[in-house]
Amino acid sequence: MEKFENVSVTTKANVYFDGKVTSRAVTFANGSSKTLGIMLPGEYEFGTDKPELMEITAGVMDVLLPGQSEWLRVVGGESFNVPGNAKFQLKVSELTDYICSFLDE
Amino acid sequence: MEKFENVSVTTKANVYFDGKVTSRAVTFANGSSKTLGIMLPGEYEFGTDKPELMEITAGVMDVLLPGQSEWLRVVGGESFNVPGNAKFQLKVSELTDYICSFLDE
Repeated sequence: MEKFENVSVTTKANVYFDGKVTSRAVTFANGSSKTLGIMLPGEYEFGTDKPELMEITAGVMDVLLPGQSEWLRVVGGESFNVPGNAKFQLKVSELTDYICSFLDE
Repeated sequence: MEKFENVSVTTKANVYFDGKVTSRAVTFANGSSKTLGIMLPGEYEFGTDKPELMEITAGVMDVLLPGQSEWLRVVGGESFNVPGNAKFQLKVSELTDYICSFLDE
């Protein structure tokens, strides 16, 4: 099973949408950071600061990326990128376990 | 904010009760392990293998420990111990963010 090695983890969770979305912040030795998160079924809108890479470990969702009119189906093992300073919408149909990486511009 | 330093984190989440309880496994350099978890409001029963220390980072729950007849109210900043090879019941009234430590016998 995949592990992040030699990292630090903030013990207090990030909690959104009354706990339907939660995540843990992980910081790597090189200073970069990711979050490990869970989304329960539901519809959500998120905003980015930095560009993000969303890797779906497990689950099923549909994503409406900024500037797009077609929803994108994303399942476990797949990923998508979101530009910085943008909003994106999600329709989660099956509990989704994800890794969010914050990318340099 | 409190952090676990120099640990490894399994990227795949532990998921229980249809995602109402989820956690991440964290392993320390000395080989010990903890989980960082979230419990949404609800009623749950868990079983232990090793004895456990449950530290509540935030939230409100009532706990019925093995062999007890009185429910124990536990809130953020408090903790409780559970013996090994035992079952315990939880009534979570507010989203609870917790740290579970697995103790040697």
